[in-house]
Amino acid sequence: MSYSDSLSKKLESVGATEGSKLSVDRDGRTFVGTLMPHHEFSAPDIVILKMKSGYNVGVKVTDSTSITVLEQPAERVPRDTKVEVRPGLPKLVLIGTGGTIASYVDYRTGAVHPALSTSDMVNAVPEIREVANIDARVLFSIFSENMDVHHWQELASAVADEINSGADGVIIPHGTDTMGYTAAALSFMLGDVGRPVVLVGAQRSSDRPSSDASSNLMACARFCTQSKRSGVYVVMHDTLGDDSFAVHFGTRVRKMHTSRRDAFHSINSLPAAHIGRDGKVELKCDLPAAHGGTIVPKTGMERSCVLLQYYPGMDPYLFEDVFMKSKGVVIAGSGLGHVNSGMIPLLRRATENGTIVVITSQCLNGRTNLNVYNTGRDMLAAGVVTVYDMIPETAYVKLMWVLANSSSREEAVEMMRTPLAAELSDRRVIDE
Amino acid sequence: MSYSDSLSKKLESVGATEGSKLSVDRDGRTFVGTLMPHHEFSAPDIVILKMKSGYNVGVKVTDSTSITVLEQPAERVPRDTKVEVRPGLPKLVLIGTGGTIASYVDYRTGAVHPALSTSDMVNAVPEIREVANIDARVLFSIFSENMDVHHWQELASAVADEINSGADGVIIPHGTDTMGYTAAALSFMLGDVGRPVVLVGAQRSSDRPSSDASSNLMACARFCTQSKRSGVYVVMHDTLGDDSFAVHFGTRVRKMHTSRRDAFHSINSLPAAHIGRDGKVELKCDLPAAHGGTIVPKTGMERSCVLLQYYPGMDPYLFEDVFMKSKGVVIAGSGLGHVNSGMIPLLRRATENGTIVVITSQCLNGRTNLNVYNTGRDMLAAGVVTVYDMIPETAYVKLMWVLANSSSREEAVEMMRTPLAAELSDRRVIDE
Repeated sequence: MSYSDSLSKKLESVGATEGSKLSVDRDGRTFVGTLMPHHEFSAPDIVILKMKSGYNVGVKVTDSTSITVLEQPAERVPRDTKVEVRPGLPKLVLIGTGGTIASYVDYRTGAVHPALSTSDMVNAVPEIREVANIDARVLFSIFSENMDVHHWQELASAVADEINSGADGVIIPHGTDTMGYTAAALSFMLGDVGRPVVLVGAQRSSDRPSSDASSNLMACARFCTQSKRSGVYVVMHDTLGDDSFAVHFGTRVRKMHTSRRDAFHSINSLPAAHIGRDGKVELKCDLPAAHGGTIVPKTGMERSCVLLQYYPGMDPYLFEDVFMKSKGVVIAGSGLGHVNSGMIPLLRRATENGTIVVITSQCLNGRTNLNVYNTGRDMLAAGVVTVYDMIPETAYVKLMWVLANSSSREEAVEMMRTPLAAELSDRRVIDE
Repeated sequence: MSYSDSLSKKLESVGATEGSKLSVDRDGRTFVGTLMPHHEFSAPDIVILKMKSGYNVGVKVTDSTSITVLEQPAERVPRDTKVEVRPGLPKLVLIGTGGTIASYVDYRTGAVHPALSTSDMVNAVPEIREVANIDARVLFSIFSENMDVHHWQELASAVADEINSGADGVIIPHGTDTMGYTAAALSFMLGDVGRPVVLVGAQRSSDRPSSDASSNLMACARFCTQSKRSGVYVVMHDTLGDDSFAVHFGTRVRKMHTSRRDAFHSINSLPAAHIGRDGKVELKCDLPAAHGGTIVPKTGMERSCVLLQYYPGMDPYLFEDVFMKSKGVVIAGSGLGHVNSGMIPLLRRATENGTIVVITSQCLNGRTNLNVYNTGRDMLAAGVVTVYDMIPETAYVKLMWVLANSSSREEAVEMMRTPLAAELSDRRVIDE
């Protein structure tokens, strides 16, 4: 849907185009702001203005509404057209997947749609073109709860294609729900990727007043171009404000709040880097330097894997099939990684059946240790594999990858317990 | 196992008994400390000394070791015997269940055993008798990963018995692994309990140098006697130090670290109270006042319930039985509470089959909201029930309780969405 005929004519008559600074006077109230793109699903009689405060408002335009152009954009970047390539700047490629960062609210229904093009996103952050030449493409347009294993595989291949075609970094706008899982999958699939690959989301859609989409995107570009590191990372706000960002390892990050802008946390690891108010990137860990070379992603995944949380009252008989029919089971055990003694025979039968049973902790923070209590030692005797401070979600993704990229059970177990992408620590973390 | 004959004789010959301050000289090294009780499973030639630093050491006594008594205990509280009741002090009952707080390390193997009697625990904290008359009993002696639904039921009945017999408060030493689940179960089963019921654990066993068992127990006694509140709570350290404690609502607390002393966190709620260095209890929330009256616990639980975490790649066919054979399913969805669109038909068939499917968030923090995205609206149309800011573990426990204590599906759903024990907030939590 586009603007109504009358609104189109009204805008045209005063010379208002996207980027124009407008004064919109309706019913005695005046709204001053920059005209934002009209989205396909927005109501036809609404203009969206980005206010000086950074907030966007949707203003319904009636016959009696007057619109005045206060200022035209100095340099206008047309939508979906090639912009000039500036020599000397690194090349970043955005690969859109959908999610809130690429969404907008339908002001008629209040619902959120995944519909912004990746170019729309870039055009909303013109300053990004000052630090890099940007190419943008849309790979998917889905909410991340619908990201599946085959999406991870396609995405890893797409990233590799861009890097092999000369990208100095890849930015992946992504829904936040499962961004951590995707980041872990790319971490294992891309291996020594040689360039920064950064997933980024938003907790507020791009046309909501408090959207964090633009600032998160700009932080990604800064991290890629300033730090020149290799690896898969997630960049998100690390405070409720608009000017502080954390760069998380793709295997160590978890969405820890349903709605806050600072929802993403590194678990059992410092963030990889921090980007402050001044736009400067400060590395917090020793990150591998970027390097060239062609990459061949290993996208094989064994889908017959499950992730389960142990809880009191868990019925081993009900989960018989889940354990015996799966090639890999990750359990988020209690405390140091425990299940109750009633579950242990099932763990034993599953491992005897060839299933790899991997133990993590539902505490999320800290390390598994099955040597402290009898329960743990009985679990070890049943053949389970502990993976120390790896979070359950990363262990699930890694187990799928390891099972498809190893040639024996022994090799798979060894790979699970060996850090491949910063997903676990060799040394005991000092807690106190 | 007790001391060896030769060690028993050596101790007897110098008049050393539990509580004696000893100097133990072996191989040119001198250990000075208070003789601790000998535990059943300790090696027969080891004495355990509590050092001035608070650390306990186990010292192997050989023929050439010399033991000297430096000081006898001023007032010795005999083990497992009645102590004088001080009129005017409130009566607290300890009901032991096991766990690290009631454990000690077997110095031969390094393993931890659940064997300290509840009296042992009280005797290790003599100052507790200055604030209350203490009765102690052992109900179970198990690690909490083995706590099951029937243990919760027995424990609720035992608590009710003690309260109906005149206890002004009940303290429940408990393993930390599943303490949050038990606390939630007691919260619903005991309802308007009228007295403080406080679960307490330790992350370090009582005879380990850095044990938090004694200080946590003392904090419980202070909370019970000073604040005189009603309800089920969990008291644990809230810092790495030894002098600051949080009182958590039994339905809002989660073990968030495998090993740190400050592992327990309130989720989506302030702690109920705080106990500081000075031993003063400061209420952080409006807690119901203690009151008298007989209580009748409602211990019915529908065991046919499961707790599942949604993850990308979750196979609805593999979980068919789990959903269709359960009366209640709690899902920790992604983000605002989502599953992927492939799971939704299974949710629909389960709800049509009479199963109550309850949606929480694996983010843990924040509130579910299925009205923002299409996925969520499809889930609502499939008949799922969202429970806002209730954590997954509490939702699982509550669902078991609700299904056994309601007479229709409608009533059960209404109960799930109504705060009964501070487990969910009516009002939208302001995040930003």
